[in-house]
Amino acid sequence: MRRVAVAGIGLTPISEHWDKSLVDLAVESSCRAIDDSGSLNFDTLYVANVGSAFIQRQQNLGSMISDALGIKGINSLSIEASSASGGFAFNEAVRAVASGVSDSVLVIGVEKMSDALPEEVASTLAMSEDQEYIAYTGITNFGLNALIHRFYMECYGVTASDIAMFAVRCHEHAEGCNHAQYPFKISVDRVLTSPMESDPIHALECSGIGDGAAAVILKPFEGKDREVEVLATATSTDIFHLTQRRDITTLNAVCSAAEKAFRTAGISRKEVDLLELHDDSTIMGVLSLEDLGFAEKGKGSTLVVSGVTSRTGELPTNTFGGLKARGNPIGATGIYQISELVMQLRGEAGKCQIENARVGLAENLGGVGSSCSVAILRRL
Amino acid sequence: MRRVAVAGIGLTPISEHWDKSLVDLAVESSCRAIDDSGSLNFDTLYVANVGSAFIQRQQNLGSMISDALGIKGINSLSIEASSASGGFAFNEAVRAVASGVSDSVLVIGVEKMSDALPEEVASTLAMSEDQEYIAYTGITNFGLNALIHRFYMECYGVTASDIAMFAVRCHEHAEGCNHAQYPFKISVDRVLTSPMESDPIHALECSGIGDGAAAVILKPFEGKDREVEVLATATSTDIFHLTQRRDITTLNAVCSAAEKAFRTAGISRKEVDLLELHDDSTIMGVLSLEDLGFAEKGKGSTLVVSGVTSRTGELPTNTFGGLKARGNPIGATGIYQISELVMQLRGEAGKCQIENARVGLAENLGGVGSSCSVAILRRL
Repeated sequence: MRRVAVAGIGLTPISEHWDKSLVDLAVESSCRAIDDSGSLNFDTLYVANVGSAFIQRQQNLGSMISDALGIKGINSLSIEASSASGGFAFNEAVRAVASGVSDSVLVIGVEKMSDALPEEVASTLAMSEDQEYIAYTGITNFGLNALIHRFYMECYGVTASDIAMFAVRCHEHAEGCNHAQYPFKISVDRVLTSPMESDPIHALECSGIGDGAAAVILKPFEGKDREVEVLATATSTDIFHLTQRRDITTLNAVCSAAEKAFRTAGISRKEVDLLELHDDSTIMGVLSLEDLGFAEKGKGSTLVVSGVTSRTGELPTNTFGGLKARGNPIGATGIYQISELVMQLRGEAGKCQIENARVGLAENLGGVGSSCSVAILRRL
Repeated sequence: MRRVAVAGIGLTPISEHWDKSLVDLAVESSCRAIDDSGSLNFDTLYVANVGSAFIQRQQNLGSMISDALGIKGINSLSIEASSASGGFAFNEAVRAVASGVSDSVLVIGVEKMSDALPEEVASTLAMSEDQEYIAYTGITNFGLNALIHRFYMECYGVTASDIAMFAVRCHEHAEGCNHAQYPFKISVDRVLTSPMESDPIHALECSGIGDGAAAVILKPFEGKDREVEVLATATSTDIFHLTQRRDITTLNAVCSAAEKAFRTAGISRKEVDLLELHDDSTIMGVLSLEDLGFAEKGKGSTLVVSGVTSRTGELPTNTFGGLKARGNPIGATGIYQISELVMQLRGEAGKCQIENARVGLAENLGGVGSSCSVAILRRL
């Protein structure tokens, strides 16, 4: 297998882009990634997207977006694994370049949620769960997260404010982030007095909905300046129904993807300098810290409260605000995470820059942890 | 790159499966493929599907179906490239096994269209075209095919009955096919007196809508009995809007995918013993014969009329009935095609068996030819 590098990245701000179509956003991010990489060539295009079939009534994004980029004759397709679509597409791309079947891959994560009515957004998110047995009851994804959240507090004696700190830290980090949807601070009080989204989860513990596109270009690693190496990627799945899992406070897909990724990377947890985690609600961020192996079970929020995951802590986490504050354009989120790792590792993170970033890890979740991808990146 | 084999196949009949869910169909075909291959192990699952987000309001099929199969911890995701989803998923799988990143891949094509109202089916099909510039006008895919159909007749002096013969041959071949949706003969007269779907295309020139799932298991080639080798796969894209193409009677994605596939396979067109083509309407079958390089431009239907593409002809085509008579469960169609080649090459095609089948080619189209995959298979 060849060594693989991220050769270019491109982002649009996450926002309500009323003046741009889904394809406009995809093209904008791609052009930035192409500029950044200094190369126009790629033989494969993966589009990570969740909502377009339902919201825009648009499929066939592979040939549609490659044509919009002025390219034809390539391998171009869409990849979907719920909100982990970006991470799963990145994994496919890394495998393609590593194995030599592809010399350059463009991966675009794109989502345009503003076109949808609120009930359509809820329907889109609920498609990650079993329609016939779970979603039909009316329970939302945040409702499922709430089951975990409450059970976790009772099992481990953790308080609501401990977990709410995850959102507070995210918002601290988003200040000064140009592409973040909510770049301002919030307090624990403000979180815990915000309306209940799904008891015990408050509205300000949940990631919002936004439009955005992120693109990365992968190539064989050459050791050039600004290249960031992909040490490992791994994906995994868990039992689909939350209620059938032995312990709902453990995300097995995260454990197994992390184990595979660290084995491939040949490094230890201690060598990781920053994390980009999938906090679609605060509890998922906390569980991710634990199931990736950075905190003991029940101690994830302790790390957050103590400041370890802050920008100046030992393990800065969600350094641009995470899903909570940077935003969560569902199918694009995984590619935003990868791009953010690259910005940190290159030292191009602006006001969000952390010190001495050499190795970063991104974790992207689909459903309520039924799908997970993990990527570990390193600068020379 | 390693040599790759299809180690197992499994099909459900294409029909209206009122008593089965989309996941039931996927599991049924997978269990048959697992039985057929004699092995339970696979590390990757690709699900090819088009309609589930819109029709069943279901996504995340990767982890959902792997869980339904009793498997967790694998790389499992959905792939979409309009009605070429099956072919594009097969291409990903072949690349994964050939390059050594995967030792065994299960590819499932699955579609359940009966759950949808007729207008929802039309909406689903229209998603393969640009919603904002093409589909919003109300033109259907068959409407776009009709533009090609009429222009082709005028350019090349071909008659309606010449082209209608493509459907007649398909129905001849479907007789005796256990998994075909319409296993009965029709005449040219019956085709040309059937209602207009979109002038000049008659209803009986169009593929229908059905439920079905097909699964294949790919492994490194070992030279065992019943193994069928994948000599090559290739995918390509064309200009997205039909109206922007230089010549609408040429499917450039087909030309370029075929060229790549034959170059990789290292064989000539003359070595191909049978074809499974994407005749979503008759004209697309005719153009496919030409753009794959088996007929001169304007002469595709001559091949059909003369009997060359019949079961006992020199180049049997759509030997189980093609999209027209076997059926077209959109995202699954490409995997049905691969399975049918395997059945022919193994000599297990029953009443549909052709003689001396050694090399077969499958062609799967998305949109109005904006995406194309080609696969070339060979038995020892």
